[in-house]
Amino acid sequence: MRRLDDLENGYKIWQESEAFCFGIDAVLLAHYPVLKDGDRVMDLCTGNGVIPLIMHGTAREEAKKVSFSGLEIQEDAADLARESVQQNGLSDDIRILSGDVKEAAALVGAASFSLVTCNPPYTPGGGGLFGEDARKTIARHEVLCTLDDVVGAAAKLLKTKGRFAMIHRPSRLAEIFACMRSHGLEPKRMRLVYPFVDKAPNLVLLEAVKGGGPQLNVEPPLIVYGKDGGYTREVLLIYGKI
Amino acid sequence: MRRLDDLENGYKIWQESEAFCFGIDAVLLAHYPVLKDGDRVMDLCTGNGVIPLIMHGTAREEAKKVSFSGLEIQEDAADLARESVQQNGLSDDIRILSGDVKEAAALVGAASFSLVTCNPPYTPGGGGLFGEDARKTIARHEVLCTLDDVVGAAAKLLKTKGRFAMIHRPSRLAEIFACMRSHGLEPKRMRLVYPFVDKAPNLVLLEAVKGGGPQLNVEPPLIVYGKDGGYTREVLLIYGKI
Repeated sequence: MRRLDDLENGYKIWQESEAFCFGIDAVLLAHYPVLKDGDRVMDLCTGNGVIPLIMHGTAREEAKKVSFSGLEIQEDAADLARESVQQNGLSDDIRILSGDVKEAAALVGAASFSLVTCNPPYTPGGGGLFGEDARKTIARHEVLCTLDDVVGAAAKLLKTKGRFAMIHRPSRLAEIFACMRSHGLEPKRMRLVYPFVDKAPNLVLLEAVKGGGPQLNVEPPLIVYGKDGGYTREVLLIYGKI
Repeated sequence: MRRLDDLENGYKIWQESEAFCFGIDAVLLAHYPVLKDGDRVMDLCTGNGVIPLIMHGTAREEAKKVSFSGLEIQEDAADLARESVQQNGLSDDIRILSGDVKEAAALVGAASFSLVTCNPPYTPGGGGLFGEDARKTIARHEVLCTLDDVVGAAAKLLKTKGRFAMIHRPSRLAEIFACMRSHGLEPKRMRLVYPFVDKAPNLVLLEAVKGGGPQLNVEPPLIVYGKDGGYTREVLLIYGKI
């Protein structure tokens, strides 16, 4: 079922209950990079466009001029994203492209972005829950693109010193670092997301710099829920609830 | 000044105020690997032998038969370590060797240990504070051995599926992962040590497995100090204070 949700940043977003609904990972990733005035941002695997829509709100609040592109291989997700862009009157600032991450540089030009973001499929291989909507499977599992495809595309799209921000599973950290470095992207910032203060992390936020030197800034823990089971103050702030 | 300190595990340790005193990093590392009955453990850069002395206490408590070796390049640190081993009557279980990490496999035999531990110098290059005791500089900076020397030695000393446990600075994580993988050691466990719950981590505990598959288990945060400025319950337990 299609529905129009509120992003709590002044914008609305079209979602599709059975296939394309964003989660906390998209929200955390959208708030991770620090935007710079004049940034040109490409969001790979953009889905229904949630990341550019959230980031545009941040750029507006911070009075920074930033342009966004989103690339999506699934046509109906790209269509939803385009409708949301139009609904919010953002067609001048956000363009949604249909296409394959592996062809991204050919499609939009190599070395033409200052920031690439991606909330990619997390799970290796073509797995997927039986009976799951195929569109969800594609978003969650490496069916149509692998970690290496995404990181390789980001490296090609970025200018020298451009940033690549990604959210992923901590279990794949060693692979991710190796993959980034093999494409000339040096991990420079990392933040682990722990559901509770005494639990293992289930997400990791990363920012790499094209051609950066070897020094990683590991940041304070991001803890999602407090002892009372509600969101922590930091997460409420990120969601725009306080 | 030499002094005899209590390890709070039934053993005492000789320290030298100006040169060789262990810190929290050694204590955390000594408690990180899970010992197995029959383990053969080598501690590289053992200094005054604090890590085998703490781990022997754990093995004794857990009624596991484990043998320990410690390798140290600085002769006076190795002498202190030998005195502590003798003082505690542990000469049958812990042997302290003098020598260079780079010659370790030639010295004690390749593929002859099931667990290698190391609390290495953290800082790249031959730096060091002006006026600092040369013995401290060697322990803290990569003057006599580099990260690659330590990880390479561990890889050679380990049997297949043997574990390598190390503590280091989070800022070097990308390098460390790359270095481990280049020597056939796959990072399998990681725990970040945060001084306070809202601060960046200053230490990282790692365990890699020789010939392991690519899946990293990132564990709950280890937080050192509580809001009251005292040690957290977990750290007090590690120190044997409660």
